[in-house]
Amino acid sequence: MIVILKQNAPKQKVDDLLEQLKSQGVGIHFSEGTHTTLFGLVGDVSKIDQEALEALDVVETVKRVSEPYKLVNRKFHPADTAVKAGDGVIGDGMFGVIAGPCSVETPEQIISVAKRMKTAGAKFLRGGAFKPRTSPYAFRGLKAEGIELLLEAKKETGLPIVTELTSLRYLDLFNEVDVIQVGARNMQNFEMLSELGHCDKPILLKRGLSSTMEELLMSAEYIVSGGNPNVILCERGIRTFETATRNTLDISAIPLLKQKSHLPVIVDPSHASGIASLVPILAKTAVVAGADGLMVEVHPNPPAALCDGAQSITPDIFDNVMENVRTLCKLEGKTL
Amino acid sequence: MIVILKQNAPKQKVDDLLEQLKSQGVGIHFSEGTHTTLFGLVGDVSKIDQEALEALDVVETVKRVSEPYKLVNRKFHPADTAVKAGDGVIGDGMFGVIAGPCSVETPEQIISVAKRMKTAGAKFLRGGAFKPRTSPYAFRGLKAEGIELLLEAKKETGLPIVTELTSLRYLDLFNEVDVIQVGARNMQNFEMLSELGHCDKPILLKRGLSSTMEELLMSAEYIVSGGNPNVILCERGIRTFETATRNTLDISAIPLLKQKSHLPVIVDPSHASGIASLVPILAKTAVVAGADGLMVEVHPNPPAALCDGAQSITPDIFDNVMENVRTLCKLEGKTL
Amino acid sequence: MIVILKQNAPKQKVDDLLEQLKSQGVGIHFSEGTHTTLFGLVGDVSKIDQEALEALDVVETVKRVSEPYKLVNRKFHPADTAVKAGDGVIGDGMFGVIAGPCSVETPEQIISVAKRMKTAGAKFLRGGAFKPRTSPYAFRGLKAEGIELLLEAKKETGLPIVTELTSLRYLDLFNEVDVIQVGARNMQNFEMLSELGHCDKPILLKRGLSSTMEELLMSAEYIVSGGNPNVILCERGIRTFETATRNTLDISAIPLLKQKSHLPVIVDPSHASGIASLVPILAKTAVVAGADGLMVEVHPNPPAALCDGAQSITPDIFDNVMENVRTLCKLEGKTL
Amino acid sequence: MIVILKQNAPKQKVDDLLEQLKSQGVGIHFSEGTHTTLFGLVGDVSKIDQEALEALDVVETVKRVSEPYKLVNRKFHPADTAVKAGDGVIGDGMFGVIAGPCSVETPEQIISVAKRMKTAGAKFLRGGAFKPRTSPYAFRGLKAEGIELLLEAKKETGLPIVTELTSLRYLDLFNEVDVIQVGARNMQNFEMLSELGHCDKPILLKRGLSSTMEELLMSAEYIVSGGNPNVILCERGIRTFETATRNTLDISAIPLLKQKSHLPVIVDPSHASGIASLVPILAKTAVVAGADGLMVEVHPNPPAALCDGAQSITPDIFDNVMENVRTLCKLEGKTL
Repeated sequence: MIVILKQNAPKQKVDDLLEQLKSQGVGIHFSEGTHTTLFGLVGDVSKIDQEALEALDVVETVKRVSEPYKLVNRKFHPADTAVKAGDGVIGDGMFGVIAGPCSVETPEQIISVAKRMKTAGAKFLRGGAFKPRTSPYAFRGLKAEGIELLLEAKKETGLPIVTELTSLRYLDLFNEVDVIQVGARNMQNFEMLSELGHCDKPILLKRGLSSTMEELLMSAEYIVSGGNPNVILCERGIRTFETATRNTLDISAIPLLKQKSHLPVIVDPSHASGIASLVPILAKTAVVAGADGLMVEVHPNPPAALCDGAQSITPDIFDNVMENVRTLCKLEGKTL
Repeated sequence: MIVILKQNAPKQKVDDLLEQLKSQGVGIHFSEGTHTTLFGLVGDVSKIDQEALEALDVVETVKRVSEPYKLVNRKFHPADTAVKAGDGVIGDGMFGVIAGPCSVETPEQIISVAKRMKTAGAKFLRGGAFKPRTSPYAFRGLKAEGIELLLEAKKETGLPIVTELTSLRYLDLFNEVDVIQVGARNMQNFEMLSELGHCDKPILLKRGLSSTMEELLMSAEYIVSGGNPNVILCERGIRTFETATRNTLDISAIPLLKQKSHLPVIVDPSHASGIASLVPILAKTAVVAGADGLMVEVHPNPPAALCDGAQSITPDIFDNVMENVRTLCKLEGKTL
Repeated sequence: MIVILKQNAPKQKVDDLLEQLKSQGVGIHFSEGTHTTLFGLVGDVSKIDQEALEALDVVETVKRVSEPYKLVNRKFHPADTAVKAGDGVIGDGMFGVIAGPCSVETPEQIISVAKRMKTAGAKFLRGGAFKPRTSPYAFRGLKAEGIELLLEAKKETGLPIVTELTSLRYLDLFNEVDVIQVGARNMQNFEMLSELGHCDKPILLKRGLSSTMEELLMSAEYIVSGGNPNVILCERGIRTFETATRNTLDISAIPLLKQKSHLPVIVDPSHASGIASLVPILAKTAVVAGADGLMVEVHPNPPAALCDGAQSITPDIFDNVMENVRTLCKLEGKTL
Repeated sequence: MIVILKQNAPKQKVDDLLEQLKSQGVGIHFSEGTHTTLFGLVGDVSKIDQEALEALDVVETVKRVSEPYKLVNRKFHPADTAVKAGDGVIGDGMFGVIAGPCSVETPEQIISVAKRMKTAGAKFLRGGAFKPRTSPYAFRGLKAEGIELLLEAKKETGLPIVTELTSLRYLDLFNEVDVIQVGARNMQNFEMLSELGHCDKPILLKRGLSSTMEELLMSAEYIVSGGNPNVILCERGIRTFETATRNTLDISAIPLLKQKSHLPVIVDPSHASGIASLVPILAKTAVVAGADGLMVEVHPNPPAALCDGAQSITPDIFDNVMENVRTLCKLEGKTL
């Protein structure tokens, strides 16, 4: 941590600050320039509050040198993490595809899709039971019944299921869910993250609409520091000025997150664009960008979907997606 | 709602669509152009799912004509709404100032600040008991004890208290809280919004970091449609490419939200900039922009604050803020 | 174009407006709903000024139905456009790679790089002679001498050259340049675009930092409507809130621009990320996203580069990039 | 400038780097931490290229400590700069209002508006002769004839005129123009900035749509370092994800730019929102934010305006704006 002092900061106040910092056990390297005086804090600075320092009269600004996350940092944990659920594995060379409808709608719908997804090569079944919707007047999912239907589909196919938790008060309903999804709008629901740190299920953590990669990693740190190392990061597009797509897929985030962290990273091409015709193309970019998996919305009849029909692809298109993924995974040395 | 058809959409499919829509009880106005064919849906279109229409083969795009919110829409409710708590009123000509520290820290801190704020002219006391923090290693508030201390400060001063709810599981602790704050990161926590629609306390709803004004109004619609009409909207800065300020205060949102909705709108100049020296200036802009109130972070000793010290002002500076607010409210015809 | 009227718009004023519009030769389809009255304009609406309509007392808002660009619109020109310069072709199934240093520095540098690029498989040589730089104190390129050196490199290798025009007053120096680059900061330099519409050289048009895809296509329309059909669009990253990368590569723009327009689209992975280690990965994503080419910054000794060293790759890394591009182009059915 | 080294950077390479930097005349303060080793560069670092350092194998990242601009920096020039043209003054306590139509249309229009603006209290007349337009099919201004009409209006009223230069090739036509405006899309047209540094007229420099405050100040530095100290900065809204307004007025930029620089700062509330009904409100926020002036689009008949009608106010509304500005300037201690 580097502290840059204000021009003409009174010597006495600066000395007091240095004493106080030393008493907190950090080392200090002082550097006086013509226009700028600064000092570096060395040692364990995790207890030093950057904002408190910046609020001091004598301080111009403070710059952090090391990342604020530790447990998810590749520097301190160089080997790739693989996250497993049932027969599905994501990370450390294993490419895992999660597929299924935006919402669980009927037993027929979810079971037929599940079978179709399994045949096509998906390793996980997704389906929304609790749906976050911008409008209070929109369909908000089948809730507990939706979870039941997913578990039936699991029984039929053996596919582990992935579904979104929208409130901790539903957590008891998720006992047999294999992977709990934290949606983009809950990425900084810190109460939820803390609680999920105490469970032993894999967590699929989606990047917030306007969250930086660092914030995503800090949210993962919440879960891992709670005791749960099974976190899958998911890039699903960020909000920008561009309105031609629903979100802007930040494809660079895939290799960069993998440089910075050992956690697996997957891509959701459906939410990233909001346009079904782009999904197969974005899925390919995800594989060559180094992603460890995909999450794709598939619906047997998109125009009749109760939610997100515009971005859902049909099972036939999904077969094409899987074919391309297979070819590209081979090139990338990944096992599908 | 206007539906624009794809070029060369097969007549039979279009006719089928029109029949289906008519059967849902909406009227249709058909318009065939040289390059573009479209039709407008009239009557009650609230049941028509825009996304499902957009997913249809024959549809190019769908444009909404009317706002998706009703209960918070000024068109259907022209008179200003005033929200009251204790002796404090915000809206309909009454300008209310909420002030206090980012976090409740000690009994002395919160009680002394509360007295000071009351003397200065604040009508509400704010203070965080549950603090959402980006890092799992940062101070997360005194929690239940913080609420207790706020209630003591209320007993001492009579000021109604405003504090943030970070999870529904703490709701029982908020029985005597006067105004429940929904933080920016929970603006689209729809479970929380729905639940708060069933309570009878005023809700202070902060705009999300990357939420549009329309999304903010839709979140307010969640609460109001649940049965709770007491919602205060709060502009607190949005996330943009500019990094010189913590957020970008969207000052135009004040008059625009007030044009579109009858709900009161306040401004949080502390989070909007993250820079203490800008707070008094942004507070002035809020008043002349037509805001119905302010929420300001004040700390007796900002550099020692456990949270957000860099953006907190001292009680003395707050006195200046109030003096300016008083002068400008008079010009604006608002009662402080 | 759809015109939505204000509630309670006086009938006389609306009738006047309709008369006036009819006199401009457009057809009108009127549609009266319960809450909303609107009408569609059909026929040639290119002369109707949307903003002027929106400024009318009786008009609530105006929505455009068709794209504002025509000559670059795939709807009116379904076949892919290929742009040629020397032996290089970009578009319509031909994948073209442009490579070279950010800035031309010395004869040795540019000639040795040019030879190396040709061997590696690049079809065009890039090099900056006029450099736009944020700081007036930074190196701004060798200017006329830089152009001379590029032409020497062309003589040595036969590679057509691509270089940026920063002001029309240098246009005379570009007589023997093969492809004129319009930089991101000049994407809406309409005077430059108009002038380049009158020349017969291919124009490489880079997307502006905060320009939408539609604005990029409108800028291309400037050039094409001036008489020059040889425009190559270039996605080079947009500005967002994320600071971990220099810009955010909008990978979805590739397939979307190609859906909307017949012009070829290439990707600049160097500026898109600003991080050399990401360049080879982003190059792969560009190919599978359907791009028609790449523009890559290559420098024999990046740390010694006078400009943009942090994002330049070495010739050896470029060999790897080309190998991957070759493999992926084969899969995509593109000819390299 | 602070250079943070990579973990395990080879000692020999680091020593070589230190030697090389010392030979460039800068001092070095070395600081070795447990996890991080870094050094500060002190003295004149303006010749050190940050990007080149960042490209080095041994360097993790480089952080700048001081601002990259000098001549426009308030640290080195604490007193406010006032810019004068004719009888108009902007800055150093003088509040100047620039008003007039988006485009010059006819002699009657511009002369009548000019007289009206003068009576209302404007000190400068604005009017576009060369208009940058997104579409090649839109009205692009009367060009040379527009300048002529502005000069006639000046002769009639004595008001100094402000008009936009869209290309250096028109510079000769600007000999009698009082203030040359550089539009948002030309804020980083460095050739234009350099050239305007050699002229002796005041330059009104508008912030780019996605330019940071630092970039705006760097563009001002271009002009001032060329020898022309008469620069007025103009905040006119930035591009964000919010679409309810044309741009997002960054009101915090006013006080922050004035803290960082001695140059005067004005606000353009017309482009900032694109909505006429917001203009009078945003004008008030500008005054209390500490702006030194305003630039407002006024048109006698906005719906008939050839450009930007939706954001133009009528002369009567402008009278109200001036009345409010007068009242607020008095409060702010500014002379109108």
